[in-house]
Amino acid sequence: MNKNYYAIIMAGGIGSRFWPVSTKAFPKQFHDMLGTGQTLIQKTFSRLNESIPSKNIFVLTNQQYHDLVLEQLPELESEQLVLEPAMRNTAPCILYAALKIKTKNPNAVMVVAPSDHWIEDQQSFSNQLKTAFESCSNTKKMITFGIRPSFANTGYGYIQYKNDQKRTLKEVLRFTEKPDYATAKSFLSEGNYLWNSGIFIWSVSTIVEAFQAFQPKLFSLFNAGLSSYNTAAEASFINDNYPKAENISVDYAIMEHAKEIYVLPAAFDWNDLGTWGSLYDKLPKDKNKNAVVGAKVLANKSEENIISTAKEKLVVIQGLSGYIVVDTDNILLISPKAEEQNIKSLLKQVKDKFGEQF
Amino acid sequence: MNKNYYAIIMAGGIGSRFWPVSTKAFPKQFHDMLGTGQTLIQKTFSRLNESIPSKNIFVLTNQQYHDLVLEQLPELESEQLVLEPAMRNTAPCILYAALKIKTKNPNAVMVVAPSDHWIEDQQSFSNQLKTAFESCSNTKKMITFGIRPSFANTGYGYIQYKNDQKRTLKEVLRFTEKPDYATAKSFLSEGNYLWNSGIFIWSVSTIVEAFQAFQPKLFSLFNAGLSSYNTAAEASFINDNYPKAENISVDYAIMEHAKEIYVLPAAFDWNDLGTWGSLYDKLPKDKNKNAVVGAKVLANKSEENIISTAKEKLVVIQGLSGYIVVDTDNILLISPKAEEQNIKSLLKQVKDKFGEQF
Repeated sequence: MNKNYYAIIMAGGIGSRFWPVSTKAFPKQFHDMLGTGQTLIQKTFSRLNESIPSKNIFVLTNQQYHDLVLEQLPELESEQLVLEPAMRNTAPCILYAALKIKTKNPNAVMVVAPSDHWIEDQQSFSNQLKTAFESCSNTKKMITFGIRPSFANTGYGYIQYKNDQKRTLKEVLRFTEKPDYATAKSFLSEGNYLWNSGIFIWSVSTIVEAFQAFQPKLFSLFNAGLSSYNTAAEASFINDNYPKAENISVDYAIMEHAKEIYVLPAAFDWNDLGTWGSLYDKLPKDKNKNAVVGAKVLANKSEENIISTAKEKLVVIQGLSGYIVVDTDNILLISPKAEEQNIKSLLKQVKDKFGEQF
Repeated sequence: MNKNYYAIIMAGGIGSRFWPVSTKAFPKQFHDMLGTGQTLIQKTFSRLNESIPSKNIFVLTNQQYHDLVLEQLPELESEQLVLEPAMRNTAPCILYAALKIKTKNPNAVMVVAPSDHWIEDQQSFSNQLKTAFESCSNTKKMITFGIRPSFANTGYGYIQYKNDQKRTLKEVLRFTEKPDYATAKSFLSEGNYLWNSGIFIWSVSTIVEAFQAFQPKLFSLFNAGLSSYNTAAEASFINDNYPKAENISVDYAIMEHAKEIYVLPAAFDWNDLGTWGSLYDKLPKDKNKNAVVGAKVLANKSEENIISTAKEKLVVIQGLSGYIVVDTDNILLISPKAEEQNIKSLLKQVKDKFGEQF
């Protein structure tokens, strides 16, 4: 494996739309959401580890998940955890991680990948990752994986690209965050739009220079600690300075300003597992289109449900169709799939009514 | 309290329509179904104990519930448990218990009462029980409590009585077991029909003589053990002979044949708590008509549900109305209330598919 290849796994999210399975204390990426025997972060690590040496894979997460990460990824050394002392969206932590990697290896090329996505076809992913790494190695190119849209999803970012059949790597014309439905529909009919997968590939020197150019304040904040990175002084510097960073995504901070942005249309199946409904799509279904994780189920006149419980619980449903049924030790949630966007708001009501422990 | 007053609490049922809360290992009567702090059998015991000395209250149940009864009713001595080695409906066990009581006290008058019914207005129940006891003490009268029907329920037995405004105790003309809907409706319109509550009052000599007259075979079977009752030899006699008894209800075996049957229209509110729906009727409801036992509930666009869980479970429901939601340690049931009659059949399917342990 190429020793210049690095990865940052983004594992700081809470996945509150997957409540009550995903909680602040034990978020989605640390669950085996698909019942495959591996948690989402374990699957992500294995996928990247096909192309990237173990010791070059960093996990970017919140300090409170330190032990959980090391428990699930015992291959990692503690110093491969890049810990955010505060939540500040993707730009600050990517810059911080890039500077750390650059001090280790100024020739590094790196992929930034969410820890909680579902990707089918490992081989195709590895092949395309190799293409992207090679394209970035000695250039200023910044690459994202783009996903061919299957419907007018208003929850994703869209990437418009310059249509040139001869090139694999498409030049990006424009990023658009979460459009309204009419706009999303027009994007689909235009044909040269892809969903932003949130998977980025670039060389460390390119991304660091981009921060210097487009986010000079953020760059100064983290560059001031350069001599401390990968030393005993790092933790103290980060604890003092990280909370001062602006709360901004890498899309807004960098991608919408930079030149030489390219998108690689993904040849693999992808799902961000953003909601119970998208999980339902990826799970195997029985003859009544019920998708089950964990439970033993007896279903009578019940179709198209997603049922998730602790292992070995017996669930008997009758006359219930199109629902999410999630049972944990101390919480039971029953909601129509069609109203899954409201689960975040239910969680807020729960906290208001019964306390922050939920 | 009158030392001739005795009670038999019938506690051998399984309550399978209340599955999964009520199971063969832990049936309905041993649960606090209404969330009042007392189980149904404890409430029944307390209610009878207002009129009847503790030591005269017997519990008739299956051998497997021996420990459960003594745990919930520590007032009882072990010999107050009348244990059926096999399930044989109500006639054999009532005869057996009556013979046991008669050998102790030939002047006894006794009430036979189910362990799992709900009765409101203790005072009124006690007053009417006293009336019934006094009417039976030195007569051949056999009395049942009758419940004024509120609708054409096809699941109950009906008692037709001779309408005589001057008498409290009405002469019974006829018993009809579970009529069809048209018949039940005609009974209601005729006006002189009551539901059979399954609560009977008679003297021991009267009931024993009735068995001798109308069920001579059953009488001989149990009378043969007379010298062993309330001695060390009893258990062995019962284990050998009880399984030979005919499987027949006291209604069929005695009430439909005997003379001098009377019904006392109940002045108290009564509910047999036979189904989740009847339990729902008796539970307090919140402003959206949701009835909750055990759980903490957050309900959004959800009405008229009955939700029963182990204490302190949080249940969040959205877009769910008219359902039974029952959660135990290892089983979750979700069914429309309107299909509650099908729960027994679901349980059978569960046992076929997943094993007898449920």
